[in-house]
Amino acid sequence: MRKTVSLGNGLTIGGDGFVVMAGPCAVESREQLLTVAEAVAAAGAAVLRGGAFKPRTSPKSFQGLGEAGLRLLSDASNLTGLPVVTEVMDPRDVELVAAHAAMLQVGSRNMQNFPLLREVGRQRKPVLLKRGAAATLDELLLAADYIRNEGNGDVLLCERGVRGFDPSTRYLLDLAAVPVLRSRCDLPIIVDPSHGTGAAHLVAPMAKAAMLAGADGLLIEVHANPEQALCDGKQALRPEEFAALAAELRHLAPHSGRRWIGPVPVGGTLNEVRAAGRGVLVSPQQSSEEPS
Amino acid sequence: MRKTVSLGNGLTIGGDGFVVMAGPCAVESREQLLTVAEAVAAAGAAVLRGGAFKPRTSPKSFQGLGEAGLRLLSDASNLTGLPVVTEVMDPRDVELVAAHAAMLQVGSRNMQNFPLLREVGRQRKPVLLKRGAAATLDELLLAADYIRNEGNGDVLLCERGVRGFDPSTRYLLDLAAVPVLRSRCDLPIIVDPSHGTGAAHLVAPMAKAAMLAGADGLLIEVHANPEQALCDGKQALRPEEFAALAAELRHLAPHSGRRWIGPVPVGGTLNEVRAAGRGVLVSPQQSSEEPS
Amino acid sequence: MRKTVSLGNGLTIGGDGFVVMAGPCAVESREQLLTVAEAVAAAGAAVLRGGAFKPRTSPKSFQGLGEAGLRLLSDASNLTGLPVVTEVMDPRDVELVAAHAAMLQVGSRNMQNFPLLREVGRQRKPVLLKRGAAATLDELLLAADYIRNEGNGDVLLCERGVRGFDPSTRYLLDLAAVPVLRSRCDLPIIVDPSHGTGAAHLVAPMAKAAMLAGADGLLIEVHANPEQALCDGKQALRPEEFAALAAELRHLAPHSGRRWIGPVPVGGTLNEVRAAGRGVLVSPQQSSEEPS
Amino acid sequence: MRKTVSLGNGLTIGGDGFVVMAGPCAVESREQLLTVAEAVAAAGAAVLRGGAFKPRTSPKSFQGLGEAGLRLLSDASNLTGLPVVTEVMDPRDVELVAAHAAMLQVGSRNMQNFPLLREVGRQRKPVLLKRGAAATLDELLLAADYIRNEGNGDVLLCERGVRGFDPSTRYLLDLAAVPVLRSRCDLPIIVDPSHGTGAAHLVAPMAKAAMLAGADGLLIEVHANPEQALCDGKQALRPEEFAALAAELRHLAPHSGRRWIGPVPVGGTLNEVRAAGRGVLVSPQQSSEEPS
Repeated sequence: MRKTVSLGNGLTIGGDGFVVMAGPCAVESREQLLTVAEAVAAAGAAVLRGGAFKPRTSPKSFQGLGEAGLRLLSDASNLTGLPVVTEVMDPRDVELVAAHAAMLQVGSRNMQNFPLLREVGRQRKPVLLKRGAAATLDELLLAADYIRNEGNGDVLLCERGVRGFDPSTRYLLDLAAVPVLRSRCDLPIIVDPSHGTGAAHLVAPMAKAAMLAGADGLLIEVHANPEQALCDGKQALRPEEFAALAAELRHLAPHSGRRWIGPVPVGGTLNEVRAAGRGVLVSPQQSSEEPS
Repeated sequence: MRKTVSLGNGLTIGGDGFVVMAGPCAVESREQLLTVAEAVAAAGAAVLRGGAFKPRTSPKSFQGLGEAGLRLLSDASNLTGLPVVTEVMDPRDVELVAAHAAMLQVGSRNMQNFPLLREVGRQRKPVLLKRGAAATLDELLLAADYIRNEGNGDVLLCERGVRGFDPSTRYLLDLAAVPVLRSRCDLPIIVDPSHGTGAAHLVAPMAKAAMLAGADGLLIEVHANPEQALCDGKQALRPEEFAALAAELRHLAPHSGRRWIGPVPVGGTLNEVRAAGRGVLVSPQQSSEEPS
Repeated sequence: MRKTVSLGNGLTIGGDGFVVMAGPCAVESREQLLTVAEAVAAAGAAVLRGGAFKPRTSPKSFQGLGEAGLRLLSDASNLTGLPVVTEVMDPRDVELVAAHAAMLQVGSRNMQNFPLLREVGRQRKPVLLKRGAAATLDELLLAADYIRNEGNGDVLLCERGVRGFDPSTRYLLDLAAVPVLRSRCDLPIIVDPSHGTGAAHLVAPMAKAAMLAGADGLLIEVHANPEQALCDGKQALRPEEFAALAAELRHLAPHSGRRWIGPVPVGGTLNEVRAAGRGVLVSPQQSSEEPS
Repeated sequence: MRKTVSLGNGLTIGGDGFVVMAGPCAVESREQLLTVAEAVAAAGAAVLRGGAFKPRTSPKSFQGLGEAGLRLLSDASNLTGLPVVTEVMDPRDVELVAAHAAMLQVGSRNMQNFPLLREVGRQRKPVLLKRGAAATLDELLLAADYIRNEGNGDVLLCERGVRGFDPSTRYLLDLAAVPVLRSRCDLPIIVDPSHGTGAAHLVAPMAKAAMLAGADGLLIEVHANPEQALCDGKQALRPEEFAALAAELRHLAPHSGRRWIGPVPVGGTLNEVRAAGRGVLVSPQQSSEEPS
């Protein structure tokens, strides 16, 4: 019997279901986030992803909106009904991030950041643990043990590509990791074809392949204007591309033995919510100053 | 418009079709080969694979039956109606192998064996070119150019895993290579999940994933007694496992936009052929001495 | 003109000098640490290394003595006169570790732990930054920029092996990284042949090779009883092996254009210090309870 | 007691000696070859290297002068007294190449070209076997066994870099392979820092590092006009750079426990030979048409 993880809004990951988590790489502004959030919800994503704290290779790259980004994610979650997964990089931020998100992401670069693993193990939200670019699957499982040893058994494992030698792709997506992990543990297994390939035109084939390899879900980056994205625009799908992919996946799911899990219904569409004045658009600057 | 390759018996690879090539890693004996050949034909494989010349890491490992193995493959092809693909390692053997096989395989270790590439480029049978374990996709395409420059445009590219760092799998199957190659050339693309994983329990999920990644076909190892195989038994499916996988793939094909291409019908089953005395079982030793 | 980094006791790293930093992988007890510290000082090491906070792949492995280990390192530094380099893993521990060590180490797993990089950039001790196992040299230099951007320019880069595919060695020591980094930056470059190979018998040849490749120094693990080490015993040299290697390196230095930099003289040998009652041996248990 | 290999002119490789093999990547013309041959001999190289049959990634790249190149190598050997090592790619060319060269090279791409290994095992010249870019050291040793099993025990192993992920270098030179191989076999071990780095400015530091890692010799590319080289010009040293490196290596040898082995003296310098009319310059086109 495989483990399932509940996100607290009635959504369960694992088992025979299949979930898609989608959203922008980085939260850039309220408008940017809500546009995407609405689009992915409408297309059938069950979870909203988006980064407020961004681990960037260079200190000169956009580092994320931080706490203001978390508040925007909270708002987007309230408006769309989608639970939010977002990354936490600093053990001192775990409590803050957990206050805004339904699920915490530990990124690839932090897979063996043991103080962080212990800290996310001490709070009560599920943790999406991404495989390090040079990590074996045994090392990934031992990293998960750091979280579970602190009392938090709700860990999801995420394959997102390892370091390869061919510049054709940003990383080398190791889909065989899915059935290997399946044979070694009972945790839900998620695949990130966006980081795993680094190229938008490769996301759809690898997303479908991941489903057939046995994944329990996907993590996909979507941006309304990939050319202007502040982070990883080359790998982002446009909303209409995502909608087409989601439709394919939804069709394919039963033929691969999976039950498609869409968003949990909420009272009213985003447009209705906006019309009701609950979704006023503000600039990032404004949003970073508004009370949480 | 994508290129299709004809195997001369009415079978065409590429386009919207999906073919499975299956058989033992190495031809060991008439009995071993025919048992598997019959099984994979019955299960829906369109091409029989099997090695007569085996590239083995150690000189002390079984090196294949050589020309006797080729004759057994010819016989099996005649009996089952399946065209045969088999590896050629030596430029001096190209003519011989081409006389017995419908398609020549250039193995991973020989992807940049340029004299061999030129020689297979000078004969008229299609060539299945396997990616080297450290080869970039551009290098694979340039290796194909060596064959095409000699006048043979019927090249199929085969992803079979690159060298990775995780001992969980024998190689790291790079499924993103499929859509990348698709975007760079019009050649048929085949995936070998047997060598690409090295473990029988991983073959089925990766075979299905390869189909969804956009492959035109699969190369799968099947052995009636994997424990006793003289070569790579750990990655061989049993006939009944292969039949179950083939049934899944056949079901999945239309839902992934593919047309399943089974074996071309032949006059009479293998059992009927055997009953007619055309399939006398001999030991490998005997078979290597019998006239062709 | 290349940058030099001063450790505050008169020791300078970089320029035309060559320094060896040596000591146990993990601080296990006062006796273990002092035995090794005395031995490496006598053999010519200029810096004492030793881990108090240990990043271990499994949560069930020995995790280090923590603050008690830091106090033992302080004691060993006072007794031998060797400045101490030790790892810090948690941004919340930076101040504590900086209070006990002359140089902070950021380990390979944390090369892209950006909150940690920023925190060590805000204190005033030099930082030894180890290359991640899947990090390009450009990524290493950008990680150094995170530290320098906070105001701390005293960064030393450390090559310690990247992830390779051959189980012959634990990691693949990339010595070409030394001249490549030399051509891209002016920071001191250190090589760790202990982690870079994972095998004691490979440490000496790779240490000498690193000197000739142009390194400014080495980081070498030494343990009096490698078989009983709580961490990475297979790669530790015995004190007598280290002494022999240090003698070779000292001899080789001028012939490779380097000036050997031994320990800064202190008042009295460790034995004299012990005789004076300043070096009472205690068990780890005791030491972890004594006041700092 | 370690194995030594004799090249037939009194030169012995292995044991406590250290030899440098140098010359152009590809033989381009008589003038080009003789200029370099004279320079490397004068600088202390003991063996002349140069490619007549070139394994090139693209069929459109210069493929070498073939047999005409072999004749030029023979001439250069006669004129300088340096024995020649050159690559053979095709089993059908082994006899021809062995007639012109003192040592046969099996290139990295052919390390597991087993028909070729068997063929070079059946002739009586030493074989320089280069490690494949994705080959483990055990696989390299098993490839050597293919040669030795045919009766030719004179195999030299060559580390020339494996496939890495960092574009900073063309390959990742694995110097730890030297002591690992030393501990597993008694064959001479050669390092190729030219292919191993792909960049001329990295050759000298890695050459010296290789000596200290325990190599028995080096393979170094030298070209009088690297910018105009038909093959791999970026990694070629100019003659004066090679002379400076050779002087450094010669100085370093005794301090690293090695005896420098320069060229075997011959009667007369190359200039004297040329003055005597034995070194008429011809263009590559001419040379490829001249009778042998």
